[in-house]
Amino acid sequence: MFEQLGLIGCGLMGGSFAMAMKKAGLVKRIVGFSKSPGTTERARQMGIIDAEAPSAMLAVSGADIVLIAVPVSATEASFKAIKPLLTPDMLIMDVGSTKRDVIDAARRTLREHVGLFVPAHPIAGKEVAGVENSDADLYAGRQVILTPIERTLAPQLQQATALWTRLGCKVLTMSPEEHDAAYAAVSHLPHLIAFALMNAISGQPQGKDFLSLAGPGFRDFTRIAASDPNVWRDILLSNREELLAQSQIFQRNLQALEIMISDGNAQALEGLIEQASRTRANWSISSKNKS
Amino acid sequence: MFEQLGLIGCGLMGGSFAMAMKKAGLVKRIVGFSKSPGTTERARQMGIIDAEAPSAMLAVSGADIVLIAVPVSATEASFKAIKPLLTPDMLIMDVGSTKRDVIDAARRTLREHVGLFVPAHPIAGKEVAGVENSDADLYAGRQVILTPIERTLAPQLQQATALWTRLGCKVLTMSPEEHDAAYAAVSHLPHLIAFALMNAISGQPQGKDFLSLAGPGFRDFTRIAASDPNVWRDILLSNREELLAQSQIFQRNLQALEIMISDGNAQALEGLIEQASRTRANWSISSKNKS
Repeated sequence: MFEQLGLIGCGLMGGSFAMAMKKAGLVKRIVGFSKSPGTTERARQMGIIDAEAPSAMLAVSGADIVLIAVPVSATEASFKAIKPLLTPDMLIMDVGSTKRDVIDAARRTLREHVGLFVPAHPIAGKEVAGVENSDADLYAGRQVILTPIERTLAPQLQQATALWTRLGCKVLTMSPEEHDAAYAAVSHLPHLIAFALMNAISGQPQGKDFLSLAGPGFRDFTRIAASDPNVWRDILLSNREELLAQSQIFQRNLQALEIMISDGNAQALEGLIEQASRTRANWSISSKNKS
Repeated sequence: MFEQLGLIGCGLMGGSFAMAMKKAGLVKRIVGFSKSPGTTERARQMGIIDAEAPSAMLAVSGADIVLIAVPVSATEASFKAIKPLLTPDMLIMDVGSTKRDVIDAARRTLREHVGLFVPAHPIAGKEVAGVENSDADLYAGRQVILTPIERTLAPQLQQATALWTRLGCKVLTMSPEEHDAAYAAVSHLPHLIAFALMNAISGQPQGKDFLSLAGPGFRDFTRIAASDPNVWRDILLSNREELLAQSQIFQRNLQALEIMISDGNAQALEGLIEQASRTRANWSISSKNKS
């Protein structure tokens, strides 16, 4: 389907995309670039990329598909770097967890070429970062959200949709605003909370003892707290308005529960827990492959 | 090891204990009682108990070991019900997630027999309740916290320790106060937060759409929100002082992150995320069996 993938960012997300593309037979060659030469070299040694490029621009040379898989704040610099070598049939995508800021950066830097860019957010990840943890099946069975804008070119959007579908994903299309509001609630806020909880516990004198007693509920609840600090610093800052609004709604709900607890209002408390429990029990992850 | 187990409460925790005891060959007969006759009947039909008792008192008749596995607020009534049939060699345990309140109830109601009671909290559970979900391996590889008091009899404490060890658990002993402080931080607060988050999302007009977009991070983070409302109403109320204190610490940490986000203070934000991420990455569940 594609001749050459230019991969900018050979970490977990980029490395996994490269592996998935090769496994699905969707690309012949992959040229990779990472900010850290060590990462690019490891990616080549692991056979995830075929060749190392010395710059983002050169990673794009000769590519018909480009994936930018860097922390959100580095996206604009990547756009700038590759602009000189863009060609009219190229498909450019990212994998960022926020979309409005990335689109703003694309408009500012790609300008007349902004239509080549199909903003993408695959709902997949791991709490361990780095190319070593790349996984050809990371995206299989997951949702991918595409947030095209008016200027996005139709052939590029079609290619992107076909590609992710071939990788086993369920492709959804929505506006960048809808995307950012939804993921503030169901992803960015849970991460923020998990970070705050880990710090709240470890900051106490008995924090270590407390942690040594934690069980499987805590393990699952805090799994996302181990996420990559660079990536999540950018996400929380990029989507700050939606995130802070969601955090306020959360804190109001938390405080409503606290009042019932301190008042000993068992019936009202049970009612609110029941509502939460029912909502969660009726929820299931939306994907093709529920594993 | 034991002749007869009197099981009061044939739900997930009690049913799993009965199955584990039988599987390990630690008990010959099990007589069960549940508040709901349907539950007791199902437990017998499933072969989890050998006989149904019409009351908590009669479940204890002839038993040399008694497990009380009911929501925390029903523990005192169970103690009262069984008191007339206690014998001097009996071992009585519970499986409650809070310990100070259960011990207070034991002192009030068991009085001179309080030494028979070994307060126990196995760090195990599932987000699905009910005898149907009982599992002979629920406790294997998990920690069990025993919180004896001065009056706890030494033979009972030894028996309890030996029993849980035979079930594959790692047995720890601590004071009820230490227990309740630790589990407020690593279990009760995460449940409270998970309930609040589910209600925060589902209470919004676009809540359903948001939930349909959530991925594996959200799935793990909110798993505990599906927990049993009766059980958790009681736990949150029983341990309210420690819980509310932990919730305040958590909210201060959350607000510290929020301030960095709204100020756009990337460096400080990354520092706090890094601290959380490192703490979580270095943590692992303390048990014999890490599955």
